[in-house]
Amino acid sequence: MRHSTTLCVRGYHLDVYGHVNNARYLEFLEEARWRFFEEQGVIEEITGEALAMVVVNININYRRAALIHEELAISTEITRVGNKSFIIRQEIALAETGEMIADTDGTYVLFDNKLGTSVVIDGEYKALLDRLRA
Amino acid sequence: MRHSTTLCVRGYHLDVYGHVNNARYLEFLEEARWRFFEEQGVIEEITGEALAMVVVNININYRRAALIHEELAISTEITRVGNKSFIIRQEIALAETGEMIADTDGTYVLFDNKLGTSVVIDGEYKALLDRLRA
Amino acid sequence: MRHSTTLCVRGYHLDVYGHVNNARYLEFLEEARWRFFEEQGVIEEITGEALAMVVVNININYRRAALIHEELAISTEITRVGNKSFIIRQEIALAETGEMIADTDGTYVLFDNKLGTSVVIDGEYKALLDRLRA
Amino acid sequence: MRHSTTLCVRGYHLDVYGHVNNARYLEFLEEARWRFFEEQGVIEEITGEALAMVVVNININYRRAALIHEELAISTEITRVGNKSFIIRQEIALAETGEMIADTDGTYVLFDNKLGTSVVIDGEYKALLDRLRA
Repeated sequence: MRHSTTLCVRGYHLDVYGHVNNARYLEFLEEARWRFFEEQGVIEEITGEALAMVVVNININYRRAALIHEELAISTEITRVGNKSFIIRQEIALAETGEMIADTDGTYVLFDNKLGTSVVIDGEYKALLDRLRA
Repeated sequence: MRHSTTLCVRGYHLDVYGHVNNARYLEFLEEARWRFFEEQGVIEEITGEALAMVVVNININYRRAALIHEELAISTEITRVGNKSFIIRQEIALAETGEMIADTDGTYVLFDNKLGTSVVIDGEYKALLDRLRA
Repeated sequence: MRHSTTLCVRGYHLDVYGHVNNARYLEFLEEARWRFFEEQGVIEEITGEALAMVVVNININYRRAALIHEELAISTEITRVGNKSFIIRQEIALAETGEMIADTDGTYVLFDNKLGTSVVIDGEYKALLDRLRA
Repeated sequence: MRHSTTLCVRGYHLDVYGHVNNARYLEFLEEARWRFFEEQGVIEEITGEALAMVVVNININYRRAALIHEELAISTEITRVGNKSFIIRQEIALAETGEMIADTDGTYVLFDNKLGTSVVIDGEYKALLDRLRA
Protein backbone atom coordinates (compact mmCIF):
# COMPACT_ATOMS: atom_id res chain seq x y z
CA MET A 1 0.00 0.00 0.00
CA ARG A 2 1.37 3.32 -1.05
CA HIS A 3 -0.25 6.47 0.23
CA SER A 4 -0.05 9.69 -1.77
CA THR A 5 -0.75 13.25 -0.78
CA THR A 6 0.14 16.71 -2.00
CA LEU A 7 1.10 20.01 -0.50
CA CYS A 8 2.20 23.34 -1.85
CA VAL A 9 5.44 25.17 -1.05
CA ARG A 10 4.77 28.53 0.63
CA GLY A 11 6.94 31.53 1.37
CA TYR A 12 7.40 30.56 5.00
CA HIS A 13 8.83 27.13 4.05
CA LEU A 14 11.90 28.63 2.39
CA ASP A 15 15.26 29.74 3.69
CA VAL A 16 17.90 32.24 2.69
CA TYR A 17 18.64 30.41 -0.57
CA GLY A 18 14.97 30.51 -1.67
CA HIS A 19 14.84 26.73 -1.22
CA VAL A 20 12.68 24.73 1.12
CA ASN A 21 14.85 24.40 4.22
CA ASN A 22 16.19 20.91 4.99
CA ALA A 23 14.43 20.79 8.37
CA ARG A 24 11.09 21.76 6.83
CA TYR A 25 11.10 18.64 4.64
CA LEU A 26 10.90 16.54 7.81
CA GLU A 27 7.69 18.38 8.70
CA PHE A 28 6.33 17.68 5.21
CA LEU A 29 7.17 14.00 5.68
CA GLU A 30 5.58 13.91 9.13
CA GLU A 31 2.45 15.58 7.76
CA ALA A 32 2.25 12.89 5.06
CA ARG A 33 2.65 10.10 7.62
CA TRP A 34 -0.17 11.51 9.76
CA ARG A 35 -2.43 11.71 6.70
CA PHE A 36 -1.60 8.11 5.85
CA PHE A 37 -2.40 6.84 9.34
CA GLU A 38 -5.51 9.01 9.50
CA GLU A 39 -6.80 7.63 6.22
CA GLN A 40 -6.17 4.10 7.52
CA GLY A 41 -7.98 4.91 10.76
CA VAL A 42 -5.03 3.88 12.94
CA ILE A 43 -3.92 7.15 14.50
CA GLU A 44 -5.30 6.19 17.90
CA GLU A 45 -3.84 2.68 17.70
CA ILE A 46 -0.40 3.71 16.57
CA THR A 47 0.14 7.04 18.28
CA GLY A 48 -2.31 7.07 21.15
CA GLU A 49 -1.91 7.05 24.91
CA ALA A 50 -0.63 3.51 25.11
CA LEU A 51 1.68 3.35 22.14
CA ALA A 52 3.91 5.86 20.37
CA MET A 53 5.70 5.56 17.06
CA VAL A 54 9.24 6.81 17.62
CA VAL A 55 11.80 7.51 14.91
CA VAL A 56 15.28 6.10 15.51
CA ASN A 57 16.93 6.89 12.18
CA ILE A 58 16.25 9.07 9.17
CA ASN A 59 18.31 8.81 6.02
CA ILE A 60 17.24 11.49 3.58
CA ASN A 61 18.57 12.37 0.14
CA TYR A 62 17.97 15.88 -1.11
CA ARG A 63 17.86 15.54 -4.92
CA ARG A 64 16.74 18.98 -6.04
CA ALA A 65 15.57 22.04 -4.14
CA ALA A 66 11.83 22.69 -3.99
CA LEU A 67 10.84 26.26 -4.78
CA ILE A 68 7.98 28.56 -3.92
CA HIS A 69 4.53 27.70 -5.35
CA GLU A 70 5.64 24.21 -6.43
CA GLU A 71 3.14 21.50 -5.68
CA LEU A 72 4.77 18.46 -4.11
CA ALA A 73 3.51 14.88 -4.23
CA ILE A 74 4.56 12.82 -1.21
CA SER A 75 4.32 9.04 -1.17
CA THR A 76 4.46 7.02 2.03
CA GLU A 77 4.90 3.28 2.27
CA ILE A 78 5.89 0.79 4.98
CA THR A 79 8.53 -1.24 3.18
CA ARG A 80 9.82 -3.55 5.87
CA VAL A 81 8.60 -4.83 9.23
CA GLY A 82 11.28 -6.37 11.41
CA ASN A 83 11.32 -7.78 14.91
CA LYS A 84 12.18 -4.57 16.63
CA SER A 85 11.68 -1.85 14.06
CA PHE A 86 10.04 -1.06 10.75
CA ILE A 87 10.94 1.07 7.75
CA ILE A 88 8.78 3.76 6.19
CA ARG A 89 9.91 4.89 2.75
CA GLN A 90 8.78 8.33 1.65
CA GLU A 91 9.41 10.18 -1.58
CA ILE A 92 8.79 13.82 -2.37
CA ALA A 93 8.41 14.61 -6.07
CA LEU A 94 7.20 17.53 -8.12
CA ALA A 95 3.50 16.84 -8.60
CA GLU A 96 3.51 18.05 -12.20
CA THR A 97 6.53 16.28 -13.63
CA GLY A 98 7.37 13.56 -11.12
CA GLU A 99 10.88 14.94 -10.77
CA MET A 100 12.35 13.69 -7.50
CA ILE A 101 12.91 16.29 -4.78
CA ALA A 102 13.86 14.09 -1.82
CA ASP A 103 13.57 10.50 -0.74
CA THR A 104 14.00 8.97 2.65
CA ASP A 105 13.99 5.74 4.59
CA GLY A 106 12.95 6.24 8.19
CA THR A 107 13.37 3.58 10.85
CA TYR A 108 10.76 3.52 13.60
CA VAL A 109 10.04 1.55 16.76
CA LEU A 110 6.83 1.15 18.69
CA PHE A 111 7.20 2.54 22.17
CA ASP A 112 5.04 1.37 25.07
CA ASN A 113 4.36 4.50 27.09
CA LYS A 114 3.57 2.61 30.30
CA LEU A 115 6.57 0.30 30.16
CA GLY A 116 8.81 3.14 28.97
CA THR A 117 10.48 0.92 26.43
CA SER A 118 10.12 -0.14 22.82
CA VAL A 119 8.21 -3.34 22.17
CA VAL A 120 8.92 -6.46 20.13
CA ILE A 121 6.86 -6.25 16.96
CA ASP A 122 4.81 -9.42 17.03
CA GLY A 123 1.20 -10.37 17.65
CA GLU A 124 -1.23 -7.52 17.25
CA TYR A 125 1.56 -5.02 16.53
CA LYS A 126 2.84 -7.09 13.64
CA ALA A 127 -0.70 -7.63 12.38
CA LEU A 128 -1.31 -3.89 12.45
CA LEU A 129 1.83 -3.01 10.52
CA ASP A 130 1.34 -5.86 8.06
CA ARG A 131 -2.17 -4.59 7.41
CA LEU A 132 -0.76 -1.15 6.64
CA ARG A 133 1.76 -2.71 4.27
CA ALA A 134 -0.62 -4.91 2.32
CA MET B 1 13.53 44.83 35.81
CA ARG B 2 14.37 44.59 32.17
CA HIS B 3 16.00 41.46 30.87
CA SER B 4 18.21 41.58 27.78
CA THR B 5 19.48 38.81 25.58
CA THR B 6 20.82 38.45 22.05
CA LEU B 7 20.51 36.02 19.19
CA CYS B 8 21.74 35.91 15.64
CA VAL B 9 19.60 35.62 12.50
CA ARG B 10 20.40 32.43 10.57
CA GLY B 11 19.51 31.22 7.11
CA TYR B 12 16.73 28.97 8.38
CA HIS B 13 14.96 31.91 10.07
CA LEU B 14 14.24 33.66 6.78
CA ASP B 15 11.46 33.34 4.26
CA VAL B 16 11.03 33.93 0.55
CA TYR B 17 11.68 37.67 0.90
CA GLY B 18 15.01 37.12 2.68
CA HIS B 19 13.44 38.52 5.85
CA VAL B 20 12.91 36.82 9.17
CA ASN B 21 9.43 35.35 8.83
CA ASN B 22 6.72 36.92 11.00
CA ALA B 23 6.02 33.64 12.82
CA ARG B 24 9.69 33.14 13.64
CA TYR B 25 9.78 36.38 15.62
CA LEU B 26 7.32 34.81 18.07
CA GLU B 27 9.83 32.01 18.64
CA PHE B 28 12.56 34.59 19.25
CA LEU B 29 10.30 36.31 21.79
CA GLU B 30 9.43 33.01 23.50
CA GLU B 31 13.12 32.12 23.67
CA ALA B 32 13.81 35.49 25.35
CA ARG B 33 11.00 34.93 27.88
CA TRP B 34 12.36 31.50 28.83
CA ARG B 35 15.84 32.99 29.32
CA PHE B 36 14.35 35.71 31.52
CA PHE B 37 12.46 33.24 33.71
CA GLU B 38 15.46 30.91 33.81
CA GLU B 39 17.75 33.70 34.95
CA GLN B 40 15.23 34.59 37.67
CA GLY B 41 14.99 30.95 38.73
CA VAL B 42 11.21 30.83 38.34
CA ILE B 43 10.72 28.43 35.43
CA GLU B 44 9.43 25.68 37.69
CA GLU B 45 7.18 28.07 39.60
CA ILE B 46 5.70 29.77 36.59
CA THR B 47 5.56 27.01 33.99
CA GLY B 48 5.70 23.80 35.97
CA GLU B 49 3.24 20.99 36.54
CA ALA B 50 0.87 23.02 38.65
CA LEU B 51 0.83 26.33 36.82
CA ALA B 52 1.16 27.36 33.20
CA MET B 53 1.64 30.80 31.72
CA VAL B 54 -0.79 31.07 28.82
CA VAL B 55 -0.81 33.85 26.23
CA VAL B 56 -4.23 35.37 25.48
CA ASN B 57 -3.24 38.24 23.20
CA ILE B 58 -0.20 39.32 21.23
CA ASN B 59 0.02 42.72 19.59
CA ILE B 60 3.22 42.96 17.56
CA ASN B 61 4.55 45.77 15.38
CA TYR B 62 7.02 44.84 12.69
CA ARG B 63 9.14 47.98 12.23
CA ARG B 64 11.89 46.80 9.87
CA ALA B 65 12.81 43.36 8.54
CA ALA B 66 15.69 41.54 10.20
CA LEU B 67 18.22 40.08 7.76
CA ILE B 68 20.68 37.22 7.78
CA HIS B 69 23.69 37.47 10.14
CA GLU B 70 22.19 40.43 12.03
CA GLU B 71 22.53 40.22 15.78
CA LEU B 72 19.32 41.02 17.57
CA ALA B 73 18.95 42.35 21.11
CA ILE B 74 15.69 41.36 22.77
CA SER B 75 14.42 43.06 25.91
CA THR B 76 11.72 41.53 28.11
CA GLU B 77 9.86 43.30 30.87
CA ILE B 78 6.68 42.73 32.84
CA THR B 79 5.02 46.12 32.56
CA ARG B 80 1.64 45.60 34.23
CA VAL B 81 0.15 43.09 36.66
CA GLY B 82 -3.64 43.11 36.78
CA ASN B 83 -6.22 41.04 38.62
CA LYS B 84 -6.61 38.45 35.93
CA SER B 85 -3.75 38.99 33.52
CA PHE B 86 -0.36 40.61 33.13
CA ILE B 87 1.50 42.31 30.32
CA ILE B 88 4.98 41.44 29.09
CA ARG B 89 6.54 44.04 26.82
CA GLN B 90 9.29 42.83 24.51
CA GLU B 91 11.37 44.74 22.01
CA ILE B 92 13.65 43.39 19.31
CA ALA B 93 16.33 45.80 18.12
CA LEU B 94 19.50 45.56 16.08
CA ALA B 95 22.21 44.88 18.65
CA GLU B 96 24.72 47.15 16.92
CA THR B 97 22.67 50.27 16.30
CA GLY B 98 19.60 49.90 18.49
CA GLU B 99 17.36 50.29 15.45
CA MET B 100 13.95 48.85 16.30
CA ILE B 101 12.95 45.64 14.50
CA ALA B 102 9.75 44.72 16.31
CA ASP B 103 7.98 45.47 19.54
CA THR B 104 5.15 43.69 21.22
CA ASP B 105 2.84 43.70 24.19
CA GLY B 106 1.72 40.22 25.16
CA THR B 107 -1.10 39.55 27.58
CA TYR B 108 -0.81 36.42 29.70
CA VAL B 109 -2.84 34.60 32.33
CA LEU B 110 -1.76 32.05 34.90
CA PHE B 111 -3.53 28.76 34.31
CA ASP B 112 -4.04 26.22 37.08
CA ASN B 113 -3.52 22.86 35.42
CA LYS B 114 -5.51 20.93 38.04
CA LEU B 115 -8.48 23.28 38.11
CA GLY B 116 -8.36 23.68 34.34
CA THR B 117 -8.96 27.40 34.62
CA SER B 118 -7.02 30.63 34.90
CA VAL B 119 -6.46 31.98 38.39
CA VAL B 120 -6.97 35.34 40.03
CA ILE B 121 -3.57 36.99 40.39
CA ASP B 122 -3.30 37.67 44.09
CA GLY B 123 -1.38 36.30 47.06
CA GLU B 124 1.71 34.33 46.09
CA TYR B 125 1.01 34.75 42.36
CA LYS B 126 0.94 38.51 42.66
CA ALA B 127 4.04 38.43 44.85
CA LEU B 128 5.86 36.34 42.26
CA LEU B 129 5.00 38.65 39.36
CA ASP B 130 5.71 41.77 41.39
CA ARG B 131 9.10 40.35 42.26
CA LEU B 132 9.82 39.84 38.54
CA ARG B 133 8.79 43.44 37.84
CA ALA B 134 10.79 45.10 40.53
CA MET C 1 -15.47 37.96 0.06
CA ARG C 2 -14.58 35.57 2.79
CA HIS C 3 -12.25 32.70 2.03
CA SER C 4 -12.43 29.48 4.06
CA THR C 5 -10.00 26.64 4.35
CA THR C 6 -9.26 23.84 6.79
CA LEU C 7 -6.23 22.15 8.24
CA CYS C 8 -5.62 19.50 10.83
CA VAL C 9 -3.54 19.85 14.00
CA ARG C 10 -0.61 17.39 14.00
CA GLY C 11 1.82 16.26 16.67
CA TYR C 12 4.58 18.55 15.41
CA HIS C 13 2.38 21.64 15.79
CA LEU C 14 2.16 21.31 19.56
CA ASP C 15 4.38 22.45 22.39
CA VAL C 16 5.14 21.37 25.91
CA TYR C 17 1.58 22.04 27.06
CA GLY C 18 0.08 19.85 24.34
CA HIS C 19 -1.36 22.99 22.73
CA VAL C 20 -0.64 24.40 19.31
CA ASN C 21 2.24 26.79 19.96
CA ASN C 22 1.46 30.50 19.61
CA ALA C 23 4.03 30.95 16.82
CA ARG C 24 2.60 28.03 14.84
CA TYR C 25 -0.77 29.79 14.55
CA LEU C 26 0.93 32.51 12.50
CA GLU C 27 2.05 29.82 10.06
CA PHE C 28 -1.53 28.51 9.89
CA LEU C 29 -2.73 32.05 9.14
CA GLU C 30 -0.05 32.58 6.49
CA GLU C 31 -0.97 29.26 4.88
CA ALA C 32 -4.61 30.39 4.73
CA ARG C 33 -3.65 33.74 3.15
CA TRP C 34 -1.60 32.01 0.44
CA ARG C 35 -4.54 29.70 -0.33
CA PHE C 36 -6.84 32.71 -0.57
CA PHE C 37 -4.55 34.58 -2.97
CA GLU C 38 -3.90 31.41 -4.95
CA GLU C 39 -7.61 30.77 -5.36
CA GLN C 40 -8.05 34.35 -6.55
CA GLY C 41 -5.16 34.00 -8.98
CA VAL C 42 -3.28 36.99 -7.58
CA ILE C 43 -0.20 35.43 -6.03
CA GLU C 44 2.06 36.72 -8.79
CA GLU C 45 0.47 40.17 -8.71
CA ILE C 46 0.56 40.60 -4.96
CA THR C 47 3.72 38.76 -3.93
CA GLY C 48 5.81 38.59 -7.08
CA GLU C 49 9.11 40.12 -8.09
CA ALA C 50 7.80 43.65 -8.31
CA LEU C 51 5.54 43.83 -5.28
CA ALA C 52 5.58 42.24 -1.85
CA MET C 53 2.87 42.19 0.78
CA VAL C 54 4.54 43.05 4.08
CA VAL C 55 2.95 42.74 7.51
CA VAL C 56 3.38 45.74 9.81
CA ASN C 57 1.15 44.72 12.73
CA ILE C 58 -0.52 41.58 13.98
CA ASN C 59 -3.03 41.66 16.82
CA ILE C 60 -4.05 38.12 17.71
CA ASN C 61 -6.38 36.84 20.42
CA TYR C 62 -5.90 33.28 21.59
CA ARG C 63 -9.36 32.17 22.74
CA ARG C 64 -8.88 28.46 23.40
CA ALA C 65 -5.98 26.09 22.76
CA ALA C 66 -6.17 23.84 19.71
CA LEU C 67 -5.33 20.21 20.39
CA ILE C 68 -3.98 17.29 18.40
CA HIS C 69 -6.21 15.87 15.64
CA GLU C 70 -8.61 18.83 15.77
CA GLU C 71 -9.67 20.11 12.39
CA LEU C 72 -9.47 23.88 12.17
CA ALA C 73 -11.47 26.13 9.86
CA ILE C 74 -9.67 29.35 8.96
CA SER C 75 -11.48 32.29 7.41
CA THR C 76 -9.64 35.12 5.66
CA GLU C 77 -11.13 38.43 4.64
CA ILE C 78 -9.81 41.86 3.64
CA THR C 79 -11.88 44.12 5.86
CA ARG C 80 -10.43 47.56 5.18
CA VAL C 81 -8.34 49.18 2.45
CA GLY C 82 -6.74 52.46 3.44
CA ASN C 83 -4.37 54.85 1.71
CA LYS C 84 -1.21 53.26 2.98
CA SER C 85 -2.24 49.94 4.43
CA PHE C 86 -5.00 47.34 4.49
CA ILE C 87 -6.44 45.01 7.11
CA ILE C 88 -6.87 41.26 6.74
CA ARG C 89 -9.12 39.69 9.37
CA GLN C 90 -8.63 35.98 10.00
CA GLU C 91 -10.44 33.66 12.35
CA ILE C 92 -9.50 30.14 13.38
CA ALA C 93 -12.38 28.03 14.68
CA LEU C 94 -12.97 24.37 15.39
CA ALA C 95 -14.34 23.00 12.11
CA GLU C 96 -16.86 20.77 13.84
CA THR C 97 -18.43 23.13 16.35
CA GLY C 98 -17.41 26.60 15.22
CA GLU C 99 -15.89 27.28 18.63
CA MET C 100 -13.40 30.13 18.26
CA ILE C 101 -9.71 29.26 18.68
CA ALA C 102 -8.05 32.51 17.65
CA ASP C 103 -8.86 35.66 15.76
CA THR C 104 -6.58 38.30 14.36
CA ASP C 105 -6.43 41.58 12.51
CA GLY C 106 -3.27 41.94 10.48
CA THR C 107 -2.16 45.23 8.96
CA TYR C 108 -0.24 45.01 5.69
CA VAL C 109 1.43 47.36 3.25
CA LEU C 110 2.38 46.83 -0.38
CA PHE C 111 6.12 47.13 -0.82
CA ASP C 112 7.70 48.06 -4.15
CA ASN C 113 10.81 45.92 -4.35
CA LYS C 114 12.55 48.20 -6.86
CA LEU C 115 11.85 51.44 -5.03
CA GLY C 116 12.56 49.80 -1.68
CA THR C 117 9.57 51.49 -0.10
CA SER C 118 5.90 50.90 0.52
CA VAL C 119 3.49 52.36 -2.03
CA VAL C 120 0.37 54.47 -1.77
CA ILE C 121 -2.61 52.22 -2.34
CA ASP C 122 -4.39 53.82 -5.26
CA GLY C 123 -4.92 53.10 -8.95
CA GLU C 124 -4.33 49.48 -9.88
CA TYR C 125 -3.30 48.56 -6.33
CA LYS C 126 -6.55 49.83 -4.90
CA ALA C 127 -8.49 48.13 -7.70
CA LEU C 128 -6.77 44.84 -6.96
CA LEU C 129 -7.49 44.96 -3.23
CA ASP C 130 -11.05 46.16 -3.76
CA ARG C 131 -11.59 43.23 -6.12
CA LEU C 132 -10.40 40.85 -3.39
CA ARG C 133 -12.78 42.47 -0.91
CA ALA C 134 -15.90 42.40 -3.06
CA MET D 1 38.97 20.75 14.54
CA ARG D 2 35.87 20.07 16.51
CA HIS D 3 33.53 22.91 17.30
CA SER D 4 31.30 22.79 20.37
CA THR D 5 28.31 24.84 21.31
CA THR D 6 25.31 24.54 23.60
CA LEU D 7 21.64 25.34 23.51
CA CYS D 8 18.73 24.78 25.81
CA VAL D 9 15.53 22.90 25.01
CA ARG D 10 12.47 25.17 25.28
CA GLY D 11 8.74 24.51 25.33
CA TYR D 12 8.31 25.44 21.68
CA HIS D 13 10.87 22.82 20.58
CA LEU D 14 8.73 19.92 21.75
CA ASP D 15 5.94 17.97 20.14
CA VAL D 16 2.95 15.99 21.33
CA TYR D 17 5.14 13.41 23.07
CA GLY D 18 6.97 16.05 25.11
CA HIS D 19 10.11 15.28 23.10
CA VAL D 20 12.08 17.58 20.85
CA ASN D 21 10.50 17.00 17.45
CA ASN D 22 12.67 15.20 14.88
CA ALA D 23 12.55 18.16 12.47
CA ARG D 24 13.64 20.59 15.16
CA TYR D 25 16.92 18.71 15.65
CA LEU D 26 17.88 19.68 12.11
CA GLU D 27 17.46 23.33 13.08
CA PHE D 28 19.66 22.75 16.13
CA LEU D 29 22.29 21.18 13.86
CA GLU D 30 22.06 24.02 11.34
CA GLU D 31 22.42 26.56 14.16
CA ALA D 32 25.58 24.75 15.32
CA ARG D 33 27.03 24.75 11.79
CA TRP D 34 26.45 28.51 11.41
CA ARG D 35 28.17 29.12 14.76
CA PHE D 36 31.11 27.00 13.65
CA PHE D 37 31.51 28.86 10.35
CA GLU D 38 30.98 32.20 12.08
CA GLU D 39 33.70 31.46 14.62
CA GLN D 40 36.03 30.49 11.78
CA GLY D 41 35.19 33.68 9.90
CA VAL D 42 34.14 31.84 6.74
CA ILE D 43 30.42 32.52 6.54
CA GLU D 44 30.84 34.92 3.63
CA GLU D 45 33.25 32.59 1.83
CA ILE D 46 31.19 29.46 2.25
CA THR D 47 27.63 30.72 2.10
CA GLY D 48 27.84 34.06 0.39
CA GLU D 49 26.58 35.38 -2.93
CA ALA D 50 28.99 33.35 -5.03
CA LEU D 51 28.96 30.03 -3.25
CA ALA D 52 26.37 28.09 -1.28
CA MET D 53 26.81 25.01 0.87
CA VAL D 54 24.04 22.62 -0.08
CA VAL D 55 23.10 19.46 1.80
CA VAL D 56 22.61 16.35 -0.35
CA ASN D 57 22.17 13.70 2.35
CA ILE D 58 21.50 13.59 6.06
CA ASN D 59 21.73 10.37 8.03
CA ILE D 60 20.63 10.98 11.59
CA ASN D 61 20.30 8.59 14.52
CA TYR D 62 17.94 9.54 17.30
CA ARG D 63 19.38 7.86 20.41
CA ARG D 64 17.26 9.31 23.21
CA ALA D 65 14.63 12.03 23.28
CA ALA D 66 15.68 15.46 24.54
CA LEU D 67 13.30 16.97 27.08
CA ILE D 68 12.37 20.45 28.21
CA HIS D 69 15.03 22.51 30.05
CA GLU D 70 17.81 20.07 29.10
CA GLU D 71 21.00 21.74 27.97
CA LEU D 72 22.42 20.18 24.83
CA ALA D 73 26.04 20.18 23.70
CA ILE D 74 26.45 20.02 19.94
CA SER D 75 29.76 19.14 18.31
CA THR D 76 30.49 19.88 14.65
CA GLU D 77 33.40 18.52 12.66
CA ILE D 78 34.29 18.16 8.98
CA THR D 79 35.39 14.54 8.85
CA ARG D 80 36.01 13.96 5.15
CA VAL D 81 36.65 16.13 2.09
CA GLY D 82 36.14 14.36 -1.21
CA ASN D 83 36.31 15.45 -4.82
CA LYS D 84 32.70 16.41 -5.11
CA SER D 85 31.36 16.48 -1.58
CA PHE D 86 32.36 16.63 2.06
CA ILE D 87 31.05 15.16 5.28
CA ILE D 88 30.16 17.09 8.42
CA ARG D 89 29.69 14.93 11.50
CA GLN D 90 27.58 16.39 14.29
CA GLU D 91 26.68 14.96 17.67
CA ILE D 92 24.08 16.19 20.13
CA ALA D 93 24.65 15.11 23.72
CA LEU D 94 23.30 16.09 27.12
CA ALA D 95 25.66 18.83 28.30
CA GLU D 96 25.67 17.59 31.87
CA THR D 97 26.26 13.86 31.43
CA GLY D 98 27.47 13.47 27.85
CA GLU D 99 24.65 11.03 27.15
CA MET D 100 24.12 10.88 23.39
CA ILE D 101 20.88 12.36 22.07
CA ALA D 102 21.46 12.22 18.31
CA ASP D 103 24.32 11.90 15.89
CA THR D 104 24.46 12.60 12.21
CA ASP D 105 26.64 12.54 9.14
CA GLY D 106 25.63 15.15 6.61
CA THR D 107 26.93 15.20 3.05
CA TYR D 108 27.32 18.60 1.45
CA VAL D 109 28.39 20.03 -1.89
CA LEU D 110 29.59 23.50 -2.78
CA PHE D 111 27.22 25.11 -5.25
CA ASP D 112 28.31 27.89 -7.60
CA ASN D 113 25.36 30.27 -7.72
CA LYS D 114 26.37 31.80 -11.05
CA LEU D 115 27.07 28.52 -12.83
CA GLY D 116 24.03 26.92 -11.23
CA THR D 117 25.92 23.74 -10.53
CA SER D 118 28.02 22.15 -7.82
CA VAL D 119 31.78 22.57 -8.14
CA VAL D 120 34.71 20.18 -7.98
CA ILE D 121 36.36 20.59 -4.61
CA ASP D 122 39.94 21.47 -5.47
CA GLY D 123 42.18 24.53 -5.36
CA GLU D 124 40.91 27.25 -3.04
CA TYR D 125 37.78 25.27 -2.15
CA LYS D 126 39.81 22.30 -0.99
CA ALA D 127 42.18 24.59 0.88
CA LEU D 128 39.26 26.24 2.64
CA LEU D 129 37.69 22.96 3.75
CA ASP D 130 41.04 21.47 4.74
CA ARG D 131 41.70 24.54 6.84
CA LEU D 132 38.37 23.98 8.63
CA ARG D 133 39.30 20.34 9.24
CA ALA D 134 42.75 20.90 10.60
